[in-house]
Amino acid sequence: MPGNSFGRRFVVTTFGESHGPALGVVIDGVPPGLPLDQDRLRADLARRRPGQSSLSTPRKETDEPELLSGLFEGKTLGTPLCIIFRNDDVKSADYDNLRDTYRPSHADYTYDARFGLRDHRGGGRASARETVGRVAAGAVARQVLAAQGIEVVAWVSRVAGEACGDIDLASVSRGAVDANAVRCPDAESAARMEAAIRAARAEGDTVGGVIQGVARGLPAGLGSPVFDKLEADLARAMLSIPAAKGFESGSGYAGTYLRGSAHNDPFVPGERGPVTTRNHSGGVQGGISNGMPVTWSVAFKPVATIFHEQDTVNQNGEAVTLKPRGRHDPCVLPRAVAIVEAMACLVIVDHWLERWR
Amino acid sequence: MPGNSFGRRFVVTTFGESHGPALGVVIDGVPPGLPLDQDRLRADLARRRPGQSSLSTPRKETDEPELLSGLFEGKTLGTPLCIIFRNDDVKSADYDNLRDTYRPSHADYTYDARFGLRDHRGGGRASARETVGRVAAGAVARQVLAAQGIEVVAWVSRVAGEACGDIDLASVSRGAVDANAVRCPDAESAARMEAAIRAARAEGDTVGGVIQGVARGLPAGLGSPVFDKLEADLARAMLSIPAAKGFESGSGYAGTYLRGSAHNDPFVPGERGPVTTRNHSGGVQGGISNGMPVTWSVAFKPVATIFHEQDTVNQNGEAVTLKPRGRHDPCVLPRAVAIVEAMACLVIVDHWLERWR
Amino acid sequence: MPGNSFGRRFVVTTFGESHGPALGVVIDGVPPGLPLDQDRLRADLARRRPGQSSLSTPRKETDEPELLSGLFEGKTLGTPLCIIFRNDDVKSADYDNLRDTYRPSHADYTYDARFGLRDHRGGGRASARETVGRVAAGAVARQVLAAQGIEVVAWVSRVAGEACGDIDLASVSRGAVDANAVRCPDAESAARMEAAIRAARAEGDTVGGVIQGVARGLPAGLGSPVFDKLEADLARAMLSIPAAKGFESGSGYAGTYLRGSAHNDPFVPGERGPVTTRNHSGGVQGGISNGMPVTWSVAFKPVATIFHEQDTVNQNGEAVTLKPRGRHDPCVLPRAVAIVEAMACLVIVDHWLERWR
Amino acid sequence: MPGNSFGRRFVVTTFGESHGPALGVVIDGVPPGLPLDQDRLRADLARRRPGQSSLSTPRKETDEPELLSGLFEGKTLGTPLCIIFRNDDVKSADYDNLRDTYRPSHADYTYDARFGLRDHRGGGRASARETVGRVAAGAVARQVLAAQGIEVVAWVSRVAGEACGDIDLASVSRGAVDANAVRCPDAESAARMEAAIRAARAEGDTVGGVIQGVARGLPAGLGSPVFDKLEADLARAMLSIPAAKGFESGSGYAGTYLRGSAHNDPFVPGERGPVTTRNHSGGVQGGISNGMPVTWSVAFKPVATIFHEQDTVNQNGEAVTLKPRGRHDPCVLPRAVAIVEAMACLVIVDHWLERWR
Repeated sequence: MPGNSFGRRFVVTTFGESHGPALGVVIDGVPPGLPLDQDRLRADLARRRPGQSSLSTPRKETDEPELLSGLFEGKTLGTPLCIIFRNDDVKSADYDNLRDTYRPSHADYTYDARFGLRDHRGGGRASARETVGRVAAGAVARQVLAAQGIEVVAWVSRVAGEACGDIDLASVSRGAVDANAVRCPDAESAARMEAAIRAARAEGDTVGGVIQGVARGLPAGLGSPVFDKLEADLARAMLSIPAAKGFESGSGYAGTYLRGSAHNDPFVPGERGPVTTRNHSGGVQGGISNGMPVTWSVAFKPVATIFHEQDTVNQNGEAVTLKPRGRHDPCVLPRAVAIVEAMACLVIVDHWLERWR
Repeated sequence: MPGNSFGRRFVVTTFGESHGPALGVVIDGVPPGLPLDQDRLRADLARRRPGQSSLSTPRKETDEPELLSGLFEGKTLGTPLCIIFRNDDVKSADYDNLRDTYRPSHADYTYDARFGLRDHRGGGRASARETVGRVAAGAVARQVLAAQGIEVVAWVSRVAGEACGDIDLASVSRGAVDANAVRCPDAESAARMEAAIRAARAEGDTVGGVIQGVARGLPAGLGSPVFDKLEADLARAMLSIPAAKGFESGSGYAGTYLRGSAHNDPFVPGERGPVTTRNHSGGVQGGISNGMPVTWSVAFKPVATIFHEQDTVNQNGEAVTLKPRGRHDPCVLPRAVAIVEAMACLVIVDHWLERWR
Repeated sequence: MPGNSFGRRFVVTTFGESHGPALGVVIDGVPPGLPLDQDRLRADLARRRPGQSSLSTPRKETDEPELLSGLFEGKTLGTPLCIIFRNDDVKSADYDNLRDTYRPSHADYTYDARFGLRDHRGGGRASARETVGRVAAGAVARQVLAAQGIEVVAWVSRVAGEACGDIDLASVSRGAVDANAVRCPDAESAARMEAAIRAARAEGDTVGGVIQGVARGLPAGLGSPVFDKLEADLARAMLSIPAAKGFESGSGYAGTYLRGSAHNDPFVPGERGPVTTRNHSGGVQGGISNGMPVTWSVAFKPVATIFHEQDTVNQNGEAVTLKPRGRHDPCVLPRAVAIVEAMACLVIVDHWLERWR
Repeated sequence: MPGNSFGRRFVVTTFGESHGPALGVVIDGVPPGLPLDQDRLRADLARRRPGQSSLSTPRKETDEPELLSGLFEGKTLGTPLCIIFRNDDVKSADYDNLRDTYRPSHADYTYDARFGLRDHRGGGRASARETVGRVAAGAVARQVLAAQGIEVVAWVSRVAGEACGDIDLASVSRGAVDANAVRCPDAESAARMEAAIRAARAEGDTVGGVIQGVARGLPAGLGSPVFDKLEADLARAMLSIPAAKGFESGSGYAGTYLRGSAHNDPFVPGERGPVTTRNHSGGVQGGISNGMPVTWSVAFKPVATIFHEQDTVNQNGEAVTLKPRGRHDPCVLPRAVAIVEAMACLVIVDHWLERWR
C-alpha cells in the first residue's frame, strides 16, 4: 500500500490537499448495521476544526461532512463509507512565495525529494488539514467502540514547560477536557498553558507539548503478537500525526528509572479476571491488552510556521530568506487532541475486529 | 495479516516458540543478486545471542543460522530466504510452575486472554528469543543497505539513572559500541552502567534504560505520507520489541520545551542538496527523510523477571505467590542494541524499496 | 483489507451504491508527475456509460468525473486521486418491490446473508454501476502504461452462440472495437451478435458471452512468483467483474486438448531478447511476462434481470413470484469491454510498479 | 507483499527451491486450540508426493513434514506454524545443461528477465515442488474447515480428450477420487484417461486436462464484495498453480450459451434459508456464497517437459537445440488434485475467518 491507508480490518484511506477541491476519507470494514449518529460525527469534527477558538488559526472551514456512500436509512451497510469535505476558505495567493522555497522543518523539501513536485499551497498533502478525514473516520470508529463499552479520552498534559496537575485516568472525561480552549482538564493548569501559548504568539513564535490519552473498557486480549502489538500500532498511529515526535506507552521513559521490583504490576483477583494494583504496563502486556486502562502520551514539536524571518534554501539550492506569511496555529495541541483520540479509536477498533472470537 | 509479519516490500515473518523445535524467519522481497556474507550474518547474530557476557542470561544457544532457501551459489535469488535456528539449551522443567500462573508484567495472562491457551515454557512465543529471526532479517537488510551507503548504529545511552556522555552522531561506530559489554560507546559511562546492572542483579532485581540509534547515508525522499511515514514505521518497529515502552524521533520529548524559532532546523545549501544546520527533525520532515542523519531513541522497561517473590493470580483467578526460578537477563539493553538496529534496518530497507525511481 | 481495494502498488478502492449520493474511487500509488489527460479519461468512461446505444439500459447517467484530489496544475502529485460520480437518474421507486424479495441469480440474498442488511435500490453496492470507479482508475492506469508503450485492447468475441471470426492479436485496435455498438472488431460477426441480443430482448430475455483481451508492449519480467503471478492476478481481476464466470490465459481450456509437443512455444532469437513462434502461453510463463502479447478471455453469464415472472423467496423465507420491473441491459458484454480493459490495466500497472529495477 | 504469500486472515507463505536444502511454509492466522491431526496432514501430503504411482515422476521424496513451531501439546497456539520438507532425492547434475538454456514454455527465461539470475536446478523456485508447502497449509485449513462441517473435494474430470462421465456433486468423495491412480471417481473414465497418459508417455510426450472441484457445507455469506469475491479469490488461487491456464465458476463458459431465463437459479424455501433448484451460480452470487455447493474447474496445460528435442535459445540469445533429460510427470493432473483442493481450502478458510460475526 502506498501510504495513505491505515488499518487492517477497519481500513481508512485519506485523500486531499489543503487547497484542492476537497479532502476526505474512505472507510472500509465498518461493521454493518451500525446506526450512525451524524450529530456526534459533527461534534467530533468541530473539535478539530480551525477557527474554533482564539488559540487556533483564523482559517474558516465549516468542515461539513458529506457522506457519499455506505449508509442506507441511517445505518451502515458494511460497504465503504466515503466522507468528503469541501475546501472553502482557501487563500492560495498567500502561498505564492512558497512555490519554490523550502520552509524550515516543513515537508516542502522532502515532498519534492520524494515526488519530484508538490502542491505548495497551504502545505498541500502535508497540511494538517489532511487530518479532517482521520477525525471523521475516528468518529465512526468511536461509535463502533461505544457500542462495546470502550471509550477514549485524550487531553493536553503539557504545553512547553507548563505541565498539568494530576489527572484521574479512571474518570477523566471529554466534557472536562472540553471545558476550556486548551483542552486540559485541570483548569488552573489550562490557564498557565494558555498564557504560554499567548506569550509565544505575541512574539510571533510557537510552542509544543504533550498530549496524554486513555482508553477504558477494552477487554483483555486485544492485540496481535509479535509485530501488530497494540502499543506498536498505537505508536505508529501517533507518530503519523503531523508534528508528533515521541510516544510513550504506560510508564514510558519515566519507567526506565525504576527497578523491576518497583515497575512490575502485581496481579490480584478481580471481578472479571485478574486486575493489577498499579498500571505501569499501560494496560498492555506482550502487546496485548490486559483489561486495565490503556494509557499513552504523544510529544508534539512546536509549530514550524513562525512569524520570524528564517534562513533557508530554494528549489535551485540557493540560500534565501523566508518572510513570514499566511495563517497558522501558535500551538497545535488543543486541536490535536481530536486527532490523537481519532487515531487511538482507529487502532483499537482494528484490534477489536481482529480478535479471535 | 495476523501479526507475525513486518514490512511491505521487504516482508519479514518470524515464527517459533522459546522451547519449541526451532525459531526462524522468512524474508520475502530481498533484492536478487545480492552476495550474502554469512560471516557478517553470524556476527550480527552474535550480538544478540544469550550468554555472550556476564551481564546476560546464562542460557547457551549457538544461534547457528540454517539457510533453507533463497540462495544460489552465494547470491540471493529474489525468492524468499528462510533461516531457522534450532533450540538447544531448553530447560523446560524450570517453567513447570508457570503452567497455570501468570507472571506479573509478562505476557502470560494476555496470551491466555487472546488465544485461550499458551506455551508456558520460557515465555513461548512472547519470549525475546523470538527476536533471533528479526536480527537475522535485519542482518540481510543491513547488507542491502550497505550496498547503498546506508549504515545504522545503535547504542545504550542510559541504564536506570546512568546516562551516557555526548556521542557524536556523525561518527559513532559499531566498533566503538561493541568495545564493552554494555554497548555504550563512552567507556566511562559504560562502567557506571555496568555497575548499575550488577548492583541490581546482586539484589535479584533488574533495570531498564534507553537505547539511541542513528542511520546515516539515507538519501532525501524515503518515507510515504501520510500513514507510512518513516518515523511512524520506526515507532511501530521499536514498540514491537519486547519491553519497549517509548520512542522518540529527533528532538522527541525534549524538543517540546523549545519554541518553534529555536526548534526549526534552518536549511543551507549543501553539496548534494539542502542540509540543515541543526537536526531537531531527526532527519525526517513530513514523514520523509531529508538527507540528514535519522535519529531516534527507545525506552526499555526493567526486565519483568526478578528474583523476588511476587503476588499474582493463577489461571483459576486465585491469588498465589510466585517464587523466582529460571534464567534471565538483569538488563536487556546490551543485547537489545542488536534488535533495535535490526528493526531500523528493516524499516529503512522497506522504504528504500518503496521509493519512486 | 475488507474487500473494496485492488492492487498492491497502484491501489484502487471503490465506493458507492447504485442509488446513493455518489460513487467513486480513490487511487493511491499513481506515479507523480503524470500529465493526466482528462479528455481521454472521459472517453474511457463513455465506453462504460449506460444509455450509450440502443443495446444497453436506458438509464441516463452523465458519469461526469469530479476530481477531488491528487492533481496540481494538471499533473499527478503522487498523492491519492479521488474521483467521484454523482448519481443523477435514480428511479428508486422502481425497486420498492425488491426491498424484501430476493431476485434469482442476483446478490440480494447473499448480501443479506453477509451483512444482515442491504440497500435494495438498483442492486446497491452489487450494481454494475460500481464499476464506474474501476473504469476511471483503469483510465489513469492506461495513461501510465501508455507512457511505457503498453496498450490493452479487449473486444466481444462471442455472444451466446455467435462467435467472432479471426482477430489479429498483433493489430486489433480500440478504434476497430468501437466501430460498432457490440464492440466486436469483425463487422459481420458483430451484426450476428447484435441480432442475437435483439432477439433475446424481444423475448424479455438476456444473453451472455465471451470477451477477449490482449496487452501488447509488456517487457519480459512482469509478475511475481509464486502467488502474485500475472495471470493469477488477471484471473482475480476478471472474476471480480459482475457476471464473470470464467477466465482463460493464453490457450486456456482449448490448450488442454493438445499434447506438450504441440502446445510448447518454441523460442527463437528476437531483436530484444527471445521471442516465441507461437503464443499458447499467452505471454506468461511461470506467472511472469515473456515479452509476447498477453492474452486472455472472460466468460460472462447472461444478465440475471429478465422480463419474465420468476419463482423466488422473500426475506421471510416464503415462496413468492417476482414480477419484472426496472431497467436493464439485455447483454452486458458491449459495456463490459471497458471494464475488462480497465481491470487489465490495473493488474499490469501494478506489476509494472512492482518489477525489480 | 512480494508474491510468496496468500491470504488475508489465514496467511500462507511458501519458500524453497526444488534443489535447495528444504522447502516449506509458514502459516499465520491458524485459529488457536485446534488439535492438529498429523496423520491426516501426512495423508494429504501423500496425495501430492512424487513417485506415488506409475503415472508420476520417479523422483523419490518422502515429503516428511517437520513442524517447527505453532504447536503445543498437539494443539495450535494461534502463532505461526512453520512446516519444512527436506529435499532428499536431488539429482542436480541432470540439470547442468539448463544452466544457460531456456526450456520452451517453462519459467527459465522469465525468471531471468524478472530477477537477473535463477537457480536452474529442477526449475528452482518455479518447480511444482514448491506446492508441497501449499498442500501442507491446505491440510491445516481443511482441518479448520472440517470442524465447521465444510468439505472440499476435487477430481480429474478430463485428460486430453477423455472426459469424465457424470459426477454427483452432492456426494462425490475423496475416497472415490482416490480409488484409482488418475483420481477420476468414474472408473471407466479413469481407465480411458490412464490410457491417454500412457500413450503420450510412450511417445515421450505429455497431456493436460481439467480438474473439477466442489466445496460443500459453506454457510451463506462468505465472500467480500467487490474485489475479494469468493470466486475471484478462487480464480487467483487456481491460476497460481503451476500449469493452470483456465478457471470456471459454476456454469463457466458453457453457461454463456444459455439465456438468462434458462441460466437463472430459482430460489425456493429450504430448511435453513433459501435454496436454489439448480446451481449455475456455482454457489456464489455477487461474490458471496449462497449456501449451495461451490463448484469450479481448472484447466491445466500439458506438461512442458517432453522427451523430444526442441528448438530454443540460450542466455546469450543464440538458437540452440534442447535435448531431453531429467525426470517428469507425463500428466500433472492426478497429483494436482491435491493442490487444487489445498488452494480451495485456503480460500475458503480465509473467507470463513473474514466473515462478520
